[in-house]
Order: sequence, then C-alpha cells, then structure tokens
Amino acid sequence: MDVTLGQIFLSEVVGTALLILLGGGVVANVVLAKTKGFNGGWLLINFGWGLAVYIGVLAAYLSGAHLNPAVTVGLITAGTTEFVEGVPVDFASTFTYFGGEMVGAFLGAVLAFVTYKQHFDASDDPAAKLAVFSTGPAIRSYAWNVITEAIGTFVLVFAVISFGRQGDTPGLAALGALPVALVVIAIGISLGGPTGYAINPARDLAPRIAHAILPIKGKGSSDWGYAWVPVVGPLLGGAIAGWASLALLPTI
Amino acid sequence: MDVTLGQIFLSEVVGTALLILLGGGVVANVVLAKTKGFNGGWLLINFGWGLAVYIGVLAAYLSGAHLNPAVTVGLITAGTTEFVEGVPVDFASTFTYFGGEMVGAFLGAVLAFVTYKQHFDASDDPAAKLAVFSTGPAIRSYAWNVITEAIGTFVLVFAVISFGRQGDTPGLAALGALPVALVVIAIGISLGGPTGYAINPARDLAPRIAHAILPIKGKGSSDWGYAWVPVVGPLLGGAIAGWASLALLPTI
Amino acid sequence: MDVTLGQIFLSEVVGTALLILLGGGVVANVVLAKTKGFNGGWLLINFGWGLAVYIGVLAAYLSGAHLNPAVTVGLITAGTTEFVEGVPVDFASTFTYFGGEMVGAFLGAVLAFVTYKQHFDASDDPAAKLAVFSTGPAIRSYAWNVITEAIGTFVLVFAVISFGRQGDTPGLAALGALPVALVVIAIGISLGGPTGYAINPARDLAPRIAHAILPIKGKGSSDWGYAWVPVVGPLLGGAIAGWASLALLPTI
Amino acid sequence: MDVTLGQIFLSEVVGTALLILLGGGVVANVVLAKTKGFNGGWLLINFGWGLAVYIGVLAAYLSGAHLNPAVTVGLITAGTTEFVEGVPVDFASTFTYFGGEMVGAFLGAVLAFVTYKQHFDASDDPAAKLAVFSTGPAIRSYAWNVITEAIGTFVLVFAVISFGRQGDTPGLAALGALPVALVVIAIGISLGGPTGYAINPARDLAPRIAHAILPIKGKGSSDWGYAWVPVVGPLLGGAIAGWASLALLPTI
Repeated sequence: MDVTLGQIFLSEVVGTALLILLGGGVVANVVLAKTKGFNGGWLLINFGWGLAVYIGVLAAYLSGAHLNPAVTVGLITAGTTEFVEGVPVDFASTFTYFGGEMVGAFLGAVLAFVTYKQHFDASDDPAAKLAVFSTGPAIRSYAWNVITEAIGTFVLVFAVISFGRQGDTPGLAALGALPVALVVIAIGISLGGPTGYAINPARDLAPRIAHAILPIKGKGSSDWGYAWVPVVGPLLGGAIAGWASLALLPTI
Repeated sequence: MDVTLGQIFLSEVVGTALLILLGGGVVANVVLAKTKGFNGGWLLINFGWGLAVYIGVLAAYLSGAHLNPAVTVGLITAGTTEFVEGVPVDFASTFTYFGGEMVGAFLGAVLAFVTYKQHFDASDDPAAKLAVFSTGPAIRSYAWNVITEAIGTFVLVFAVISFGRQGDTPGLAALGALPVALVVIAIGISLGGPTGYAINPARDLAPRIAHAILPIKGKGSSDWGYAWVPVVGPLLGGAIAGWASLALLPTI
Repeated sequence: MDVTLGQIFLSEVVGTALLILLGGGVVANVVLAKTKGFNGGWLLINFGWGLAVYIGVLAAYLSGAHLNPAVTVGLITAGTTEFVEGVPVDFASTFTYFGGEMVGAFLGAVLAFVTYKQHFDASDDPAAKLAVFSTGPAIRSYAWNVITEAIGTFVLVFAVISFGRQGDTPGLAALGALPVALVVIAIGISLGGPTGYAINPARDLAPRIAHAILPIKGKGSSDWGYAWVPVVGPLLGGAIAGWASLALLPTI
Repeated sequence: MDVTLGQIFLSEVVGTALLILLGGGVVANVVLAKTKGFNGGWLLINFGWGLAVYIGVLAAYLSGAHLNPAVTVGLITAGTTEFVEGVPVDFASTFTYFGGEMVGAFLGAVLAFVTYKQHFDASDDPAAKLAVFSTGPAIRSYAWNVITEAIGTFVLVFAVISFGRQGDTPGLAALGALPVALVVIAIGISLGGPTGYAINPARDLAPRIAHAILPIKGKGSSDWGYAWVPVVGPLLGGAIAGWASLALLPTI
C-alpha cells in the first residue's frame, strides 16, 4: 500500500501525542499534589516514559514511528533512502515528520494537562508544573547538559538503527514495539540523572510551548533559557549515531 | 472450530474472574494490615493490575478476551462485524460479553476477599477495604473524573485495536498476551493518578456490588454516588477510541 | 530424541536447583544483614522469584520444566498422557519428577546458603534466616493459609495449562520461558501477601529440610508445625486447576 | 558473510562500551550527589545493568555479543568450535574477544564519567565515585567473595549456553537480546547482595584502570587489593558452567 505524506503526518501526530500524554502523565502523577502515584520514584518515571514510547510506536506503525526529530535526523545521516516504502527521504518528507512530531507533542501535552487538571490546581509548586511539560537539568551547565543529552540520544538512535541491521525481522506485531521501549527505559535509568533525558527535541520544545500558552493556575517561568539544550543535544547525538552506524553497524 | 455464546460467556467469566482476583489481590496486598506487600507502592499496584490482565487474557482466548465492556463497545464502534470467527456482533452476543464480564468480575472480587480474609479482619480502615473492590478519585470532581477515565480508556481501547491493524500477527502463543498487559501498566503509571484507573465498567461495578453484599468485618459505605463515573467514563472513552480508529488506524 | 527417566530426573534437579538458588537468594538479599539489596521491598522479591523460575525453566527444557510437584499433579488431573514425548504418565515417571524436584530444591537451598554465608553469619534474626529457606504466614491460620496457597497455585497451574491450549505454539526459544515467569511475578504481587506464596511443595519442604540440617550460625526453629500447609495447599490447588482446565480451557 | 577478527574486535568494543556506559551510568545516577535518580534503590540498579546488557547485545550482533571474558571462556570449555560462523576458536580469536571486551569496557567507563562529570564534581564520597567504575564486597572476605562471584557467573554462562541448546531458534531480531538481559537482572536481584555482581572480569578491571587514570575530583583508592576477585571468580564460574553444560544441557 502507498502511504501519502498526509498519512505520515497524521501517524506521527497520533503517535507523538500518545507518547507525550503518557510521558507527561507519569511526571504529573509523581510530582503534582494529591495524586495516587505521588513521589513514586525514578523507576516509575522511567517505566512510564518507556511504555509511553511503546504505545506511541504501536499506534504510529504507518510512518515507522519516529516520534522524535533526532530519530528522523539519525536515519538521514545513516544513509536511509526511504523513510517507509514509497516515501523517499527529501525536504518535504523530512519536514512532514518534524511537523507531525511537533504538533503531536503539543497535543499530547494539552491532553496530559487535561487529565491532571485538578492536580495542577491543587499544586503550589511552579517547578513541578513545568516538569510535567519539559525537562530541566539537575545541575545547570549548558555545555555538559548538551553532552549528556547527546550521549543519551546517541544510544537511542544507535540502538534503533541496530534493530534493522541484524538480518531477518519477522513480524512480531505488537511485541515489535517492545525493544525501543526497553531502550528508552535503559536510557532513563542510566543516563537520565543529569538532565532528565529529553533525548527528543519535539518532546521538550512543543510541550514547553504548551506550558507557555495554557492557562495553568500558578505556573511560573517556562525556562526558555534552557530550551535550546534539549533541542541541540539530541539532534547532535542523533546525527552522530547515524554516521557512526555506517562504520559500526554493518548489515548482515 | 465453532464457538457458542455459552462458551463465549464462560470464557469471559473465567478471564474476568482471574483479572479481578489478581487485581483486587494486589490492592489488598498493599492496603490491608499485616500483609507481606503492605505499602508496596504505586509501581507494585501497576504491575499487579497489568499482570492480572495478562493472566486473564491468557485464559480467555476462546472469546478474544475482552474482559471489559469498554473494549466490547470500542470494537463495535470500530466497525467490527464478528467478535470471533462465527460470532457476529449483535444484541445477543454483545450482552453475552457484558454478562460474562460482570459475573466474572463479581466472582473475582469474592475470591480476592477469600484470599485476604484474615487481613480484612485485621484491618480497621473501611476506605482501604473498599479500595480492594472499587476505585475512588484522589480529588472528587465528577466531570474531571469522567474525563480522566475516558482518556485512560481511550488509550487502552485504541492500543488494543492497533494490535490488529499492523498486518501479519504470527501466533505468539502465551507471549501474545503481553502487549495488552504493558498497555495497562502504562495507563496505570501515567494516567492512573487522579482516579485510580478503573478503565473498565465491569472491573469497578461488579466488585462494588460484591462489597455491598459480602459480610466484610467493619466495612463502610460502598460509595454508590461515585459508582456511575467508572462506568460512564470508560464506555465513553472506549466508544470514542473505536470511532477514532476508523480514521487514525488504517489497516495495512 | 528419546528422553530417559534418568535425564528427566537430572533436568528437574538442575532446573529446581537454579530456581531455589535464585529464589532463596533474593530473600537472603532482602532480609539478611549488610547485603546490597537489604530492605529492597516486595517488588524486588517478586521479580527475583519470577526470574528464578525463568532461569530454571530455561535450563530444564528436556523434562518440560515442571520444577514443582503441583504442576506435575495438575498435568495429571488435566488428563495428560505423556509428560514429554515418549515418557508416559505413570507411577515411575511421576515420582521421577517429584524426586528431581525435591533433590534440586535441596541443592538450590544449599547453594543459596553458600552464596550468602557471610551474611548468615552477620545476621542476628533467626526468622530472617528461616525465610531464606521456607515460607511462613503473615497471620497464622492453617485453614485460611491452605486456602490462600491453593488459590495461588490454582492460578499458576491453570495459566501454565492454558499456554498449551491456544493452538500453534511456535518455537520461541529462550523467550518461551517468559510467560511462566510473568505468571509467578503476578501471583507474588497479587496473592503472596498472606502466606509468602510457596505455591510449590518442593520449593518449601526441601529447603526446610536443608535449614534443619545445615550448620547455620544462630538459626532458630524450622517451624515444622507449618510445613504441611505449603505442601497440601499447592497440591490441592494444582489438582483442582487440572480438573478445572478440562471444562474451562478447551483446546482450539 | 565472512567476519574478520578486526570486525569481531570492533563489535566487542562497541557492545562492551555501551554495556559499561549504561551500567556505570545507573550506579552514578543512584550514588552520586544531586542526580535525578539519587538513592533509587537496588531494583533500579538491577534493571539498569540488565538493560545495559540488552543494548550492548543489540549492538554487538556481529561477534555474537560475548561482552565478557567469562562468557568467552565458558563457550570454550563447553567445546565450542567456532565463535561465529567462519571464526574458529583459537588463541588469536580468543584474545581478540578479550581485547575488544577490555578496550570497550575502558571506553564505556570514560563515557559514563563524561555523562556524569558535573555530579562527580558535586560529590564528596570517594567510595561512591569508585562504585561507578568497579564493584566492592559488602563484607570483605576474599574466599567467600570469589565463591559468590563464581556462582553468579556460573548462572550467567550456564543460562547463555542453554539458549542455544533448545532446538530451533527463530530470528526474533531485537527481542532476541531480551533473555540475557533478564538473566542478568535475575543475577543482580538474587546473587548480587554480597559482592555487587561483577560476573565479568572486563566489566570490573577495565573501569578500575579508568578510575586510576581519569582526573576525577576527590577520588580515593582504586582498591587494587580486591581487583583480582572479580577477575578470578567470574573466570572460574564461567569455565565450570561450560564444562557442566556438556553433561547437563544436552542439545535437542
């Protein structure tokens, strides 16, 4: 079946919206007042984001489920010629992915806000409210934060590319979305300590825009000074992963 | 092989009974006095319910393992013509599913009570005792609680429908029940904070009836004022997910 | 290939020894003094036992990996005619399984003791030391404890039997051992609160014998008064699950 | 396709570097000051190392992903004749594996240090800093520590060998790396309490060298007195597992 750019766009919107609804949701559950998962811990957050990716990937099968501009960029630098069968890598298709990822992430952030509306109202902590939308560093240091985000995203994109380089990939249907979820859980557990692992420009930037626009009771700054870090770091890491895969991940 | 409505009914009874036995069981383990899992945390509860679904789905293969009226409704609004091969979607088959789900959930609640009988007797907290059977909101607000339940159920039913829309589904046997378990864990982790994620009318209503009937020492109100929320919200979310899948989840 | 009773015995010994080494190990890690996992919580214990079953099943492929007399009994009451191809269900083969399970569980308990020898020496709590070997109830009540163990084992054996009743079971190699691990994790999370889920006579009785025999510094009673409960409850639950499967789990 | 020793080396370097980046990373996240996962608990560490192995195995498909001299040794004592198709087991290939494992582990330790650089600077505890690189015993006792490491590694190598002895292994692509991750999680949970489960000489020795060399602010001793334990114990356990598999894990 031939897939149109409109279908690619819609697929990325749906997948990324689910990703951010569930990913923002777990943070809301852990940091906002009076929730049932309050103070649920880092592992809960890691599983939440990993399974958020799982469900987003499940739903975005039509577009190959990038859900992340850094994945799109990494596939390009890895020399991919078609994103999915019949959709060549070019300016139009690349920006269709970027657009769907940003729109989807914005919608997902709005949905997470709606889901936890009462708990946003009941919370007094502006930093907690921002954390539902966007990441912030544990120790602010733009250079090191960029490096950490780049390393985390390198691992993500490198692993995703390795999936397709190991010979036969039988149709595993719904279980086929599990490996990327495990990779995201791993990155959160192991590399998320310093910056909260955006590892995805759309995941951080679009919800930050939502945070700025939405009528959130008692919200504080959207911290625009940090906003470029989780865009530049992941794009760098993704691009390098793609290049590296040419030398380090031969197709067998 | 031809499946009869009687077999559908029995299959849903068995699967939903296992679901509620194990799902009610994990709540009992976490909230009742003197258990070995007391105060085990939100992640333990999420894994408990997710794996409860896993085992219920394993056992209810004959009927396609709805175990949830919202799934049944979502499949209908998604335009399903046969629930399983040879069983057309009609009034009789739909209410066979509903009936099996309610009876199974009631039996599962009784079994969970029996399993933890000594700990019901040893506990002084009527709210904890009700929590083993039915959900309650963290912040009571019927409109927002309905919205949260609808969003959670939307994700569940949308994901379940997406499983069948991705081309070949090789027989994965027992592992084939894993994806829905992961989806339920995700919903609990990410969207369960405000209402405790019923996302299933039978899961909440039938155990609430059991709570009202069973001779539970020191039990309090069954909170009938809230009982309609985890029925209406999930049915809404499930129905919308089915409709949405027609546009957003094309078969490939 | 033809499998001899000697090979069946050895396979069950190896699998059950690994099961008890790892299962006893996680309890030692959580309850003995100065370990790195001290006070690690109920979920850690549940994952430990679930993955212990995973590894035991991996290693005991030759005999079908019962590792548990209640599974053996449930397969018999379910009308199984051959345990594995060429090995008919009869008195000799049944007791070969029982024997391998008991010997393996004893060896596993000794290995867990050796692994944590320094921490047994460093601990002052005789109850903690016994807990590494055998289960004990949260609230002692023989009748209710038997019921809880029977219900937990019913779920285990019922689920295990359901694996084989769903049509094609393609060779999933090492992943094929995952479903039973998930089932055991589920039972621990949801039904383990009252009795610590022996759900396996060999898992409880053989290590209790090891506890009585081994030169454990500062050990207390082996609690023989309770020893019959995790034997009778699981055998009851397993037998009932086998019978129930005849009516409730039709082969498709 | 024919694989050269150079490709084997590179594949082991990449896989082991990812393993140690992520494995060292989770320890850094849990023990260094001001991280988001600080004090995240034993289960978080266990999942971190297990998924670190998962990602390392994903990336090192070309060499069969040993990532561990004890695995290499165990395969030799198990009578393996070719490490991968066309690469016979001999002195040159064996030391190619060892070399790649050591170089990769060194690089991974450097990357983990870079990822958490700010948090190394912010921490005052020299023992915590060493823990990111190398293991240390809970109770120092060289003989017992060697035994514990040997038992843990025996389980690892025995399980890995059992994967290939169960008849058909269909191409499960990225999911095929899951079983070994589960085994490593199991070993950490159940057998990691006394020594922190190196179960891999390269995992411990190469990062210890990195610890000695790197300019880590406020670092203490590299504890060379213990360094031989997580080399000798795992090599012993791996070798015994290979031998044992000849008798206990027949090919079917």
